[in-house]
Amino acid sequence: MGIDPGVASTGFGVVRVAGSTMNALDAGVITSPPDQPPAARLALIHEGLRELISWHGPLALALEDIYFGQNVGSAVGVGQARGVAMLAAAQGGVPCFDYTPQAVKKAVCGSGAADKEQVQRMVGSLLGLPRPPESDHAADALAVAICHAAATRPDGRGQPWELANAHAREAAGHPRARVTA
Amino acid sequence: MGIDPGVASTGFGVVRVAGSTMNALDAGVITSPPDQPPAARLALIHEGLRELISWHGPLALALEDIYFGQNVGSAVGVGQARGVAMLAAAQGGVPCFDYTPQAVKKAVCGSGAADKEQVQRMVGSLLGLPRPPESDHAADALAVAICHAAATRPDGRGQPWELANAHAREAAGHPRARVTA
Repeated sequence: MGIDPGVASTGFGVVRVAGSTMNALDAGVITSPPDQPPAARLALIHEGLRELISWHGPLALALEDIYFGQNVGSAVGVGQARGVAMLAAAQGGVPCFDYTPQAVKKAVCGSGAADKEQVQRMVGSLLGLPRPPESDHAADALAVAICHAAATRPDGRGQPWELANAHAREAAGHPRARVTA
Repeated sequence: MGIDPGVASTGFGVVRVAGSTMNALDAGVITSPPDQPPAARLALIHEGLRELISWHGPLALALEDIYFGQNVGSAVGVGQARGVAMLAAAQGGVPCFDYTPQAVKKAVCGSGAADKEQVQRMVGSLLGLPRPPESDHAADALAVAICHAAATRPDGRGQPWELANAHAREAAGHPRARVTA
């Protein structure tokens, strides 16, 4: 399960890797009403993630590292949302993994310098979705889930899943044999 | 209840205001073992604060705003710890309040430019402790609790508690009639 934490909107995306196929089980956004106090908004995010974790029973929770170019104020807000997401994972017995934005872009698009639209499009393509996810929070959450899946075997350790091959095949115009819906 | 959130050490301090007197009911530090994953450390902080909140039943939880001079990396870590502290408050039905570091120093020392030792000493003096708190995390937590108490009446609203008078009396060499242990 990938998470894109934020106080107003927390994206989530659940990816299943079975053998050489990868597909999306669930994706969406937990929103919190802006007229609520910050602590109540964090409680809604925490509760939503607790439910999703208990429903899907993910093997891992993957989060994107905070972008260091951002200002301290927004880093604190994202940090608070990250905190309750990590807590929900720990309470559900699910290990957490962090990836840099560059690692996520590289895993999904083959380049650490890809833009938002490329990530959105490739997430849709790699997971065989009929169209890219509408919400960029959900797309970012699926992207970090794909990144984690690409970095690990389905059991969570060892040999990487062969996303690089899928990219190479797609770049060469071959069908994406190892990445299907 | 004041909180000084941090992943390694979260300070807490509980202050009671009864009429014109203010004293410390409890103060200390929740530490988390550095060999644990960050999510497990946040879970320990959250659990510790849940217990303290349920034990003391505070009227409010006061937190210091994050210092904007600090780097984004440490702001994220503190943000994560803040997130689980705010969540614990929301889950216990306790409203949260933020104060700038300057406001806290001003409330406790009479000047927004006071240093760490002055804060520690004045916290001990205002709460009538036999000596200043040893841990600066506990002292900072008590300081932000004092700041909140000074900004509100014991019922949480309206007319400020007369900390300014206490400072003035102390500065003038008079006994601190309104601030006793």
